[in-house]
Amino acid sequence: MSLIDLSKQVALGIDIGGTNTKYGLVNHRGEILEKGSIKTDEYDRVEDFIDALYLKIEPLLKNHSGTQRQFDGIGVGAPNANYFTGTIEQAPNLPWKGVIHFTDLMTKKFGVRCKITNDANAAALGEMMFGAARGMKDFIMITLGTGVGSGIISNGSLIYGHDGFAGELGHTIVKPGGRKHWSTGSEGSLEAYASATGITITAKKMRAEFPDSMLNSYPEDQINSKVVYECAKKGDPTAIEVFRYTGQKLGEALANFVMFSSPEAILLFGGVIKAGDFIMKPAKLHMERNLLPIFRDKVKLVFSELDEADAAILGASALVWEK
Amino acid sequence: MSLIDLSKQVALGIDIGGTNTKYGLVNHRGEILEKGSIKTDEYDRVEDFIDALYLKIEPLLKNHSGTQRQFDGIGVGAPNANYFTGTIEQAPNLPWKGVIHFTDLMTKKFGVRCKITNDANAAALGEMMFGAARGMKDFIMITLGTGVGSGIISNGSLIYGHDGFAGELGHTIVKPGGRKHWSTGSEGSLEAYASATGITITAKKMRAEFPDSMLNSYPEDQINSKVVYECAKKGDPTAIEVFRYTGQKLGEALANFVMFSSPEAILLFGGVIKAGDFIMKPAKLHMERNLLPIFRDKVKLVFSELDEADAAILGASALVWEK
Repeated sequence: MSLIDLSKQVALGIDIGGTNTKYGLVNHRGEILEKGSIKTDEYDRVEDFIDALYLKIEPLLKNHSGTQRQFDGIGVGAPNANYFTGTIEQAPNLPWKGVIHFTDLMTKKFGVRCKITNDANAAALGEMMFGAARGMKDFIMITLGTGVGSGIISNGSLIYGHDGFAGELGHTIVKPGGRKHWSTGSEGSLEAYASATGITITAKKMRAEFPDSMLNSYPEDQINSKVVYECAKKGDPTAIEVFRYTGQKLGEALANFVMFSSPEAILLFGGVIKAGDFIMKPAKLHMERNLLPIFRDKVKLVFSELDEADAAILGASALVWEK
Repeated sequence: MSLIDLSKQVALGIDIGGTNTKYGLVNHRGEILEKGSIKTDEYDRVEDFIDALYLKIEPLLKNHSGTQRQFDGIGVGAPNANYFTGTIEQAPNLPWKGVIHFTDLMTKKFGVRCKITNDANAAALGEMMFGAARGMKDFIMITLGTGVGSGIISNGSLIYGHDGFAGELGHTIVKPGGRKHWSTGSEGSLEAYASATGITITAKKMRAEFPDSMLNSYPEDQINSKVVYECAKKGDPTAIEVFRYTGQKLGEALANFVMFSSPEAILLFGGVIKAGDFIMKPAKLHMERNLLPIFRDKVKLVFSELDEADAAILGASALVWEK
């Protein structure tokens, strides 16, 4: 048996989103050798989607087999994906309804093993293998974008839970009886406050209370977390309060997460973190305030180190090499 | 190399409480072959405590070595115990202050390896090895007694976290800005509502609001969760409401726990569960109501199967044989 030359191994990372699907050929150092994308929403049948992917990717694989690289497998990040069953189930933003046996279909087409998990879990693996969580065995990844996702690493492995759906921290309740979620109908979830969507709702409420706010110079349909950030930077107290309130809710939630799994760090990723200290200072304050003394001043809040455009592909590819 | 005869292996399980310390010699089937106890609070120095334990236990070990049993090690459950460091740290209810290197002292005295963890983690291991969680790989153990403790099993192992303190679910916040905790000072923790202490506080508040309640026939210092249970059984609406409210807070917390680690079951243990359906029905209702649809009607709420007097010893002994 000869030694395996890690530098010659490549994995295919695929990130399936509602509109676009991005893919990349990734090596063990987290370098993306080739990448591309197709439109997810152009394919009503998942089989047609996979055929289209194959037509795009097969030439890339051929290129790289010429350099004696070994194609190790495919990792996929997708909404509502289940690691155990290899399925995508009832994903509201994807064109394929019901239970899709995605990894089986991929393996049939590509002839290699395929693993799948939800996007936030993939992001957590990507951070552990290539990003800010290198060397960490216990951390929580929180993605703050249109929604709030999460991936929990404990003792070096993702927590999948009994049925593969663990780590839905965006849907934990931070304020019982609080803001109704636009999609799930739950009351007071973290996502209802700390996502970009939640920030927009908070901003619309608060600008109505403070007629002097700079936020009132924008038409209703232009209010979003970017506009709030612009106004906060200019010193608008209402915009600053929008982020302070968001940070408080986030911090209260993070305290509960810490007392659950006692992570070394919480990694934050996504568009919302661009608000920086406007959110992070109150988040840190309220996290510490709600922690038992044994947890205080220990847990780092860290921003992702991965390039946002590539993180999802890297994360998905990390599934292939996961222990 | 000869095969190991599991039936001949024994472990010593020790449960350290503020007043009493119980110990037992346990075999692989979870049978307690010998047991006994000493007073914890009679020993101001931990070295004296360990000497006293040794004097009691050494004869038992001698007895059993005569039957060719193999003494595999010692497992200890104790408040504020740290699995990684083998220490007991700043335990408010124990006579030994500061950081106690407990497992080192035990190994020196007894000449075998010793492992320690907090009482609720030990209880979770005991349930997995000998109790209602046999065969489960993902469950959460909640102990509802004077306080609220927890142990989280994920993929067949306890979650210890980065520093060994994971699983403090009793201190997660279920009502931000809510009831102040008598000891930690936190506001709105699960323990402040769902422990026996919390139930007593709720009962005292509610009986003041409802002068007709049966609870008002008891002097203030006799109000406790047992009395509330007696009144609830007799149909007192206020006593029933005390448990309903407690169950609601518990259920809301359980929903968050489920969305964290997606367990197969939640195991409940401790004096408070004697209230049965008075608490469990509202707990189940509010857990389900706060779950994302993908988690609904899946997670079992199960009572411990271990005899309450023995559970802590069995749990501690299970540490010895943990993977």
